[in-house]
Amino acid sequence: MRARELASEFPTVSLDTDALEAARLLAHRHLPGLIVVDARGRPITILPGTQVMRFAVPRYVQDDPALARVIDERAADSLWQALAGTTVRDLLPGKDRELPVVNGDDTALEIAAIMARARCPVVAVVEHDRLLGAITLDALLGRMLPA
Amino acid sequence: MRARELASEFPTVSLDTDALEAARLLAHRHLPGLIVVDARGRPITILPGTQVMRFAVPRYVQDDPALARVIDERAADSLWQALAGTTVRDLLPGKDRELPVVNGDDTALEIAAIMARARCPVVAVVEHDRLLGAITLDALLGRMLPA
Repeated sequence: MRARELASEFPTVSLDTDALEAARLLAHRHLPGLIVVDARGRPITILPGTQVMRFAVPRYVQDDPALARVIDERAADSLWQALAGTTVRDLLPGKDRELPVVNGDDTALEIAAIMARARCPVVAVVEHDRLLGAITLDALLGRMLPA
Repeated sequence: MRARELASEFPTVSLDTDALEAARLLAHRHLPGLIVVDARGRPITILPGTQVMRFAVPRYVQDDPALARVIDERAADSLWQALAGTTVRDLLPGKDRELPVVNGDDTALEIAAIMARARCPVVAVVEHDRLLGAITLDALLGRMLPA
């Protein structure tokens, strides 16, 4: 069982993708993060969904979440306007989160070892400089575990 | 919109849950982690799925994943036997990963702030000392984002 057979389609964004679009992708695809690719489609990093929250929720509320209580619901809705006009580039943390990358030929055990080492539940699969897709921890466990 | 309305059922395990059972739960429910609860059902911590890999994959393969190539597929299958007879307690890292906990009465903005601060895409919802369920980042975004 090799990475290329284990890879599934996984949503990607570019540094120029609209931030609100990235947030919608996380919501609609039920994902905790997205793969960020460069202009040639090669994976650069991962955008953790929590970065969307860090960008949209005002700093003073993050410092003291109880303050959220004093903001009425309409004001809370409008917070998402903070995302309008910004891009994935703006959302990324200063220090990029490492996205583990495996080759199409890597074995299931190799992928498991890479996930374990990186403590990351998703790896990108690249072959001939092209993103084939991604392998999630749950999918890998599902294929490796005895029935 | 309060946490109690946003909470969904989320699989839990106890410290005594069989490790293989926990691995199957991750695979079947397509989750990157599980909530660990105490005997009274209160959340203690989160079990990251990557800990299953860290436990099952031999240390020398984690240190050099390319070594996985020299292990044949049958041997790779038998790795899961490393999990037999072990429990979630054995899988947990020495330093527990903090599981953010919110109260049933917390607002969506408060939950978003807590996720942002903890950089954790899931929070447990507790009310009257009882776990109501969990809220994932994608679900919260889905409810908060404008259509």
